[in-house]
Amino acid sequence: MSLAIISPGKNPDIWIEQFNKLDPELVIEVYPEITSPEKVEYVFLWQHPEGILSDFPNLKLISSMGAGVDHILRDKSIPTDIPIVRIVDDKLTFSMTNYVVMAVLNYHRQISRYQMNQTRKVWDMSTPELDVTIGVMGVGALGKDVMDKLSYMGFPVVGFGFSEKTDFEYPYYAKDQLDEFLKEVNVLVCLLPLTPDTENILNAELFEKCNPNTYLINVARGRHLVEEDLTKALETGQLSGAMLDVYREEPLPKGHPFWENWKITMTPHIASVTNPQAAAPQVIENIKRIRENRELVNVVNRVKGY
Amino acid sequence: MSLAIISPGKNPDIWIEQFNKLDPELVIEVYPEITSPEKVEYVFLWQHPEGILSDFPNLKLISSMGAGVDHILRDKSIPTDIPIVRIVDDKLTFSMTNYVVMAVLNYHRQISRYQMNQTRKVWDMSTPELDVTIGVMGVGALGKDVMDKLSYMGFPVVGFGFSEKTDFEYPYYAKDQLDEFLKEVNVLVCLLPLTPDTENILNAELFEKCNPNTYLINVARGRHLVEEDLTKALETGQLSGAMLDVYREEPLPKGHPFWENWKITMTPHIASVTNPQAAAPQVIENIKRIRENRELVNVVNRVKGY
Repeated sequence: MSLAIISPGKNPDIWIEQFNKLDPELVIEVYPEITSPEKVEYVFLWQHPEGILSDFPNLKLISSMGAGVDHILRDKSIPTDIPIVRIVDDKLTFSMTNYVVMAVLNYHRQISRYQMNQTRKVWDMSTPELDVTIGVMGVGALGKDVMDKLSYMGFPVVGFGFSEKTDFEYPYYAKDQLDEFLKEVNVLVCLLPLTPDTENILNAELFEKCNPNTYLINVARGRHLVEEDLTKALETGQLSGAMLDVYREEPLPKGHPFWENWKITMTPHIASVTNPQAAAPQVIENIKRIRENRELVNVVNRVKGY
Repeated sequence: MSLAIISPGKNPDIWIEQFNKLDPELVIEVYPEITSPEKVEYVFLWQHPEGILSDFPNLKLISSMGAGVDHILRDKSIPTDIPIVRIVDDKLTFSMTNYVVMAVLNYHRQISRYQMNQTRKVWDMSTPELDVTIGVMGVGALGKDVMDKLSYMGFPVVGFGFSEKTDFEYPYYAKDQLDEFLKEVNVLVCLLPLTPDTENILNAELFEKCNPNTYLINVARGRHLVEEDLTKALETGQLSGAMLDVYREEPLPKGHPFWENWKITMTPHIASVTNPQAAAPQVIENIKRIRENRELVNVVNRVKGY
């Protein structure tokens, strides 16, 4: 019985340290140096090579190294009877929400204009604030928390998602009401899970339905956004700017036009980073539950994709 | 009976429009074209020329155009029996809090490092967050609101002020506990009123007591800060950076060293701007109360200075 960590390009040491602390008996193997694949019962994954899980005939549990599981579901070779679990972490919510609030405030207060004025030694007090209504696409644990914080700070918020919702405490638009949702807002935050429904959802057609000068914040996945369509929408002024943390290819290639687009503020996929100290106990807890044949926590619904 | 608006260099039209709407009978005069000084019973002031109020023998009420009254109390020629009132405005609180939260988040998430990396096309995911504990100097309506919002977002907050306080819901240090307060924090927000106690409080002596790399946010008054001392503390690394909205001389002179200091982010006194639509009713209400000999609202305590 062992746990295999499969996260090419990511140093697993901090995770091993936490797992050892919590369960000193647990045997841990790290891909690609796995000596006994038949003993692997649990895998802990971040962007594993597709098809590799078929090397483990006794696999019982698949654990994602983060909140998202699109990197796992993409691999169609995974048997459907093995449960997939993900991380739900307050610290992750703290970071994600604070990143989004920062992006909203920097736009609302037009900090980039003031920075430009500082370099030119210009004192211009005009238009100190833009009126904003924030539309949050994806109202799960993260999206709901973003709405709670922005609302408490005095901003109007509106939600959009693919499920029907009753009793939601903010204005909410479901699936076929995307057009109405977009009419209500001038700041768009993407926090959707990546599923076949949502891949490429941020495209030219959607941007054309936005209010002129809408501002885009994408903190979900790079594959939500059709990148060329964003560049065009910024050129025409349909969108006024964007703050992006995720990209179709990461690290973003040196030749990518986003680097030099002054209307785009970029960060390198750091909006929210899974914290091993908070997350490792969830992984170990689910391993314990598998052994004891008990119900797992934070199980992914494969049909919904999250 | 008339109201005189005295705000050299500021266009009073939007105020006149609001006052006329609320009290069409009210006679309004604008400095320096005041035809009947003996009829002036109320003045509405922003940085009036010192001594000018002695031109109005029948003055009954002094109203500040903003939340601060240091620009009024500075004028020692004002008779002490004329009441001074100030503006307390939710919109002003909204703007001030959101500005401070923006400044805290930009530092916490080191947005300036990411902006620099973007210009160099560098993808660096290291240290996505700095741990911050925010010390708020001045815990009146504005300071308390800043603490509420930051606390709700998950940040530890600590308060400092000149009054003793019991039952304050956050850790609080009074007057003679400044050193202990500074030891607790690594982000310092100045929201103090400007009084003889607080003028020049942000000086070399205080900076030396700060934790190394403390970040400074000054949104109160320029005269709280000894500007040369800030420049030195940034050079030695005692302070890691600053976000400033107010300066000893405004507009900041072109030759001022702050413009070119990359550790300082500057805005031109726009953190919070009094909103005439919200504030004008308070001015008119106090005029009504004076006429009816009733208790005034938002009266300034001249001894405390706010």
